[in-house]
Amino acid sequence: MAEKKDKTTIILFSGDLDKAMAAFIIANGAAAYDQEVTMFFTFWGLNALRKEEHVPVQKGFLEKMFGWMMPRGANKLGLSKMNMAGLGPKMIKNVMKKHNALTLPQLIEMAKEQGVKLVACTMTMDLLGITKEELIDGVELGGVAAYLGDATEGKVNLFI
Amino acid sequence: MAEKKDKTTIILFSGDLDKAMAAFIIANGAAAYDQEVTMFFTFWGLNALRKEEHVPVQKGFLEKMFGWMMPRGANKLGLSKMNMAGLGPKMIKNVMKKHNALTLPQLIEMAKEQGVKLVACTMTMDLLGITKEELIDGVELGGVAAYLGDATEGKVNLFI
Amino acid sequence: MAEKKDKTTIILFSGDLDKAMAAFIIANGAAAYDQEVTMFFTFWGLNALRKEEHVPVQKGFLEKMFGWMMPRGANKLGLSKMNMAGLGPKMIKNVMKKHNALTLPQLIEMAKEQGVKLVACTMTMDLLGITKEELIDGVELGGVAAYLGDATEGKVNLFI
Repeated sequence: MAEKKDKTTIILFSGDLDKAMAAFIIANGAAAYDQEVTMFFTFWGLNALRKEEHVPVQKGFLEKMFGWMMPRGANKLGLSKMNMAGLGPKMIKNVMKKHNALTLPQLIEMAKEQGVKLVACTMTMDLLGITKEELIDGVELGGVAAYLGDATEGKVNLFI
Repeated sequence: MAEKKDKTTIILFSGDLDKAMAAFIIANGAAAYDQEVTMFFTFWGLNALRKEEHVPVQKGFLEKMFGWMMPRGANKLGLSKMNMAGLGPKMIKNVMKKHNALTLPQLIEMAKEQGVKLVACTMTMDLLGITKEELIDGVELGGVAAYLGDATEGKVNLFI
Repeated sequence: MAEKKDKTTIILFSGDLDKAMAAFIIANGAAAYDQEVTMFFTFWGLNALRKEEHVPVQKGFLEKMFGWMMPRGANKLGLSKMNMAGLGPKMIKNVMKKHNALTLPQLIEMAKEQGVKLVACTMTMDLLGITKEELIDGVELGGVAAYLGDATEGKVNLFI
């Protein structure tokens, strides 16, 4: 009989590069220790899951505005501190390259390979007018009920 | 004999509209699943509980300054991202209206109706010079000890 | 036979004065209730542990830039809200003095005296080029594995 695995859940609310990296580093670490990991992407955090290319979708005006103003995908996120009009993210990316650290897109890829469940918040998608086609592959959809179901069984539950 | 309910605690540290909404959506969800939910409002998070009208209270100079500079109530909060001098919150409120999503004041009302315990951090009140009369009705007062007592029994404990 | 103590872990990701204070107030509270408390300092949170004086260390250009741009130590942190080019932190410090509240350096000292384990994230140190000599005394080093080991046993796990 299989032993029950420890569970970890992470809500990624933030759309900042540094916070998204922290979230994925913890998620990948927990998955490497054979934990069951679920990440919920809500509000600005959803931007980390957007495809880089423009996906033509019929939208209302406000939804178009949001789609246009928010960063499209993991490569476009800014920093929570020292963003300096994009210089900060460049510096961080340079220093990460120098140290052979994984980029955010690589961290996301690794999470998927390790079986981390990526759940996009349906309420946010609805509000900001983001459709499933605009998100990277391998993402599930869920709401607050799905989150609570997992978190109640989680040993570690973080809001980032 | 009543089964013991699952407990959820949320510290709302942030005074941002989007983060406050996320906190109340989770809290209301957990309460709907019959969990015992406690929300602690500390630092800027306390602003979500302020009454909209000015309440005349005797205060020192610094406390007056804080009271004057900080947003008065759930309707006045800004966004953590894309605030754009108030345009962001207006866009979010418009898009929420369009989608029939509950506003923050409505989410707070629902939390109270569902029995979510709202606790204002006494240390913050003391520091920033906010009195109980300036807070909306139905709010309890408590400190870090009250929080730890609840959180130690909580299955889900978030800091937002 | 000693009863097993409750455990609390806090990740301090933020380099903001207000968030660092909140983290240490919770940590000190939990330690006062005889809990085993571990704080992990990652990304900007590491700045709270930097020594105030300049420590001469051989560094690459990017690492020097980060070291120069980031606040050096607990006394230099800004606020997450209402920083107003340094006026906010001054106001907060004034109001804290008036109310005899502990400063952040005092909260850190108290945490150390109470046996709170302070762990600096090695990945962040590596990335930003911060060495152990540049951190205050009494800090351990650890990575995501150390965090997960503690957090899996923690009753309260927060990300701040």
